[in-house]
Order: sequence, then structure tokens, then C-alpha cells
Amino acid sequence: MYTVGVDIGGTTTKLGLVEEGGRVLSSSAFNTADQADAQAFAATLAFQVRRLVAGAEIAQAAVKGIGIGAPNGNFHKGTIEYPPNLSFKGITPLVAMMKAYFPSWEIRLTNDANAAALGEKVYGKAKDVDDFIVITLGTGLGSGIYVEGRLVYGHDGFAGELGHVIVEPGGRACGCGRQGCLETYASATGLVRTYQELVEKQTGISGDLSQEPEEHTARGIAEAAERGDSLALETFLLTATRLGLALANAVAVTSPRVIYLFGGLTAAGELLMAPLQEAFDAHLLNVYQGKVRLEISGLPGSEAAILGAAALLD
Amino acid sequence: MYTVGVDIGGTTTKLGLVEEGGRVLSSSAFNTADQADAQAFAATLAFQVRRLVAGAEIAQAAVKGIGIGAPNGNFHKGTIEYPPNLSFKGITPLVAMMKAYFPSWEIRLTNDANAAALGEKVYGKAKDVDDFIVITLGTGLGSGIYVEGRLVYGHDGFAGELGHVIVEPGGRACGCGRQGCLETYASATGLVRTYQELVEKQTGISGDLSQEPEEHTARGIAEAAERGDSLALETFLLTATRLGLALANAVAVTSPRVIYLFGGLTAAGELLMAPLQEAFDAHLLNVYQGKVRLEISGLPGSEAAILGAAALLD
Repeated sequence: MYTVGVDIGGTTTKLGLVEEGGRVLSSSAFNTADQADAQAFAATLAFQVRRLVAGAEIAQAAVKGIGIGAPNGNFHKGTIEYPPNLSFKGITPLVAMMKAYFPSWEIRLTNDANAAALGEKVYGKAKDVDDFIVITLGTGLGSGIYVEGRLVYGHDGFAGELGHVIVEPGGRACGCGRQGCLETYASATGLVRTYQELVEKQTGISGDLSQEPEEHTARGIAEAAERGDSLALETFLLTATRLGLALANAVAVTSPRVIYLFGGLTAAGELLMAPLQEAFDAHLLNVYQGKVRLEISGLPGSEAAILGAAALLD
Repeated sequence: MYTVGVDIGGTTTKLGLVEEGGRVLSSSAFNTADQADAQAFAATLAFQVRRLVAGAEIAQAAVKGIGIGAPNGNFHKGTIEYPPNLSFKGITPLVAMMKAYFPSWEIRLTNDANAAALGEKVYGKAKDVDDFIVITLGTGLGSGIYVEGRLVYGHDGFAGELGHVIVEPGGRACGCGRQGCLETYASATGLVRTYQELVEKQTGISGDLSQEPEEHTARGIAEAAERGDSLALETFLLTATRLGLALANAVAVTSPRVIYLFGGLTAAGELLMAPLQEAFDAHLLNVYQGKVRLEISGLPGSEAAILGAAALLD
């Protein structure tokens, strides 16, 4: 049997056909932002799923169903609710909408970061870890939290929104409608905003980075930092310091053994991890000192989210 | 059978003899700060326990044991570790020390706020609530977190230290050795510090409040606010605003249905709760809006912590 794993991101939606055991047989992707609304998105996703299954030359009956990881995804209700970084706003009952296309399949949905945490538990470094947090650093910042071997959904299915912890009251405007959320500082988008602020402060004029796709630009800043660009280095330091404090604070809630970092920004490696570890250690409460590890996820980037989403049907 | 429930606070240690079913037969208290060190504290506690049992005219064999709630108490290890507000510092293996006095009794220990959460679940308003947080507002700020019907201990037994979430980097010095922890603002002590700052700002001279015991002084500020004292009212507004934001942030981690407030400061009633609710609503992420209640604990003050600690042996 096969499962289709779907990872809905602010920029790109990725999908893969996953064999039992966890091999990704084939995969594809499409631009999330190009979809006019939720109906268009569902139609495109259904089309892409059909094409993926047809391309693999397997019968539709050999597919168990679809597991979907989405920003602000609600596991209990099968909905995406008020996603700050998607083009379709409000409440989208995506599971019901996909059921209309695939009535005989099982379809489940969860928060994209919860899917990453499921993936880390089933296929990654967390196989033997019962208390951990996965932080996804992409367009936004997401989190999936395991407590005593179980993924925390909370009473309404929306636990683990660390990206929307307010770290700077009255700070940067966030896609959620509030100000100063962690993800406005610690994410690919946040990194770009910080760099632009530093450039403007130094030159008095706006940078042209806003013309570039965000993910590309975060990579550009990482490359500049590798070349020794002082503003790019300061950008990573500021970003890591914010994130390190926020992660030290998160430890004081659920007391995890490991925090895994996942997603595009982790490609920066030590550029991010060295100042992050320093800020984390500096802000960790004494009772947790020396007990909590920060690690980069053990899963391969794009496949991890797909595998995690597929694991929803296990 | 009976259980001795013990609530160790920064100012006072309370103990009670609890009947099966949850009635507190008799209780007593002693001054925590008067004890020179951990050995003296354990000796005094053992003496008080013996006197309590003797006074009730029951046989020592009719007592199951002792349940202890303590700041920075570690359920897994039976230790109190680096308590910011107690006179004995470092690591105190209190369960082992009490075992030396009562070898045949079962002795368990947990965080004082976890004990309050256990009490709320077993005897209070949370009987039918699976996801909730109890916030204790005393000398410090503690928290006990339930996720899907289970108290969260985390991998090391120290989950739920919301009082030590850093809300103001570089802010007020905290007993834990760091700066800007939530409890330096939102607690009886924090309330007094805020009031003193406001008084100093207005008059240019230090108030004499530091001469008073902290708990008494927090009550004094509440009384002043009731009389319409503008600085006292502003103190409650500032305190409640800090706490409201921090609680809204905590919702984004475990997504509780209710947050129960417990302890001395809640005696201030609407003086605290009205601005708290306002700040909480203003900072809550849209996906949680209208789903999370703030309530004052359903348990009677001093007995609640004793009952919660006793519930450790159930």
C-alpha cells in the first residue's frame, strides 16, 4: 500500500508517494501562492495527486489515502484556520474538500510542524526520545511538541504555535494580525527583514532584497555571511539570539530532552547554530542546564515533511 | 487511612492531615525562612508532622505517608533543586531526608504548582477538564500543566516553570540568577517591586514598603487600589498586562481549555482579573480566540496546596 504525503508551505506545496517503510517513490511540487483561493488550491492538489499516482503506474486502490501537513492545520477538524502565510484566509475544510475528489481514501491533516515532528519520531533522530520539540524554520516558524511519547494537540488541535509567541510587544507586524511574534524575527522572512533593517540603518536607503523570492534571499544572506559580510553576520547573530531566548523559554514549559531544528534556514549550519547554542545556554534556567540538546533534524529537507504527513495514516 | 500534605512556600510551610475523600482533619504551619538550612528544615518538618499526627490522636500506622509540594520540586528524583525563594540553596534530597525520620511511610514530592494542579484536577474545577494550566501567584509564580488528562513532568521532572520564562531580557534580577523572569513582575513580590518603582518615580524617594513582609504588602497595595489609590491601580494594571501577555503566549504552546489562577494575589479579585482578561484577549492568537477561559481556582487557598500534595499518594 501507498500513502500520499502533502506538505503545504507558504511558497511551495510538495507532495510525494510514500511506500510502506518510508521510501518516497516519487514526488512533485507546485506554487502555493499561485492558487487564487482555497477551491483552486484543492483542485490543483487533487490534479497533482492524480498525476503522481498515474505516473507511478499503480492502481488508485493501492493508495490508502492522503496525509497533509499545513500551516495552522487542525488535526481534530481537518481544517486550515487563519493561516498567516497562505493566499487563502479564514477557515478551509481541506479534508472535506479533498474527500470530494477521493471519496474512498482516508484523508488526514495536521499542522505542518506537527507533521515534521511525526516524521522526526518515526523516521528521524527522535525514535528513542519521548520529550522533544521540532522547530520548523521556513517562511514562518512552526513547532511540534512531544510530551512523554505523544504529540501534543491541545484541547482544540492547535497546540504548538511557538512561532506566534509574542517576543516583542508592539514589534514587527505579523501575518496573524498581531505584532512582535517570534516568526517575524526567527524565520526566512524574519532574517530578510532584519537584514533590510540593518542595510537601511547603514545606508539610509532601502535594499533591493524585497524584489527577490524570500527563500532565495535568506540563502543569499547566508552566502554573504559566509563571505564575511558584516551586516549578514550581524543578521544571523540577531536572529539566533532571539531564537535562542525563545527556545530557552519553551524549555520551561514542557522540559524537552532535545530541540530539533528543521527547514530551509538550517542549511546555514554553524552560522545559525553557533550563536543559537550560545544564546540558548545563556538564557536557560539553571535546573535545565546541560540537560537539553539543540540539534539539526535528522531528516532530509523536503522528504521529511512529506514523510511526516504520510505518517499521519500509520 | 490518612495522608500528610505539605506545602512548602517561600514564606510559610503549611501541613495538613488529610482523610481519604479529601477532608483536612487538622493543619499547622511554620516559617520557612526561619530555618537555617535544609537539615534544620527537615528536622522542623518532621517535628511538625509528628505533632500533627499526635494531636489528631491517630496511630502513626494509620498514616500512609507524606506528599510534599515544593518550589523547584522534582517528582522523579524527590529533590528540591536550586529554589530561588527558599533559604536552602543547591540540591536538597528532601524525600530521602524525610525517609530517615519516617522509614515505613511512603514519601513523594513534586513542584508546588504541580501539586496545586493535582488538587484542581482531583478536588477543584478541573475534574472534567483534560487540558489546563494552573498558575500559582504567591511569593513567586509557578505553573502546573495538564495535557490530555496527564500532568506534564517533562524528561527531567521540571516541566511547567512559566515563572521563569524571560519576558524582559535584561530586566529585573530574579532569584534564579537571571534577569527579566515573569515572576519578577507577576507575583506578590513583583507587584511590590512595581509599586515601589512607581512610588519612587513619582516622589523621587524610596517607599518604606520594603520593611513589610511581602505578602502583607501585596495585600496592602490591593487595599490601596480598592480605596482608589492611582499608583496602586496602575500597579495592578501593569502586573495584569504582563501576566495576560505571558498567559496568551503559554496558550500557544499546549493549547489549554482553561487557565486557573491560584494563590494569594487572586484575593484581589476583579482588580487583577478584569485587566488580566483584557490583556489576555488582546494578545491571544486568532485560532484560540473565544476558546480559552481564565478562572480563579475552585479550591480554598491554603487547603488546596495541602490537598494537592496529599493527592500525590493517591
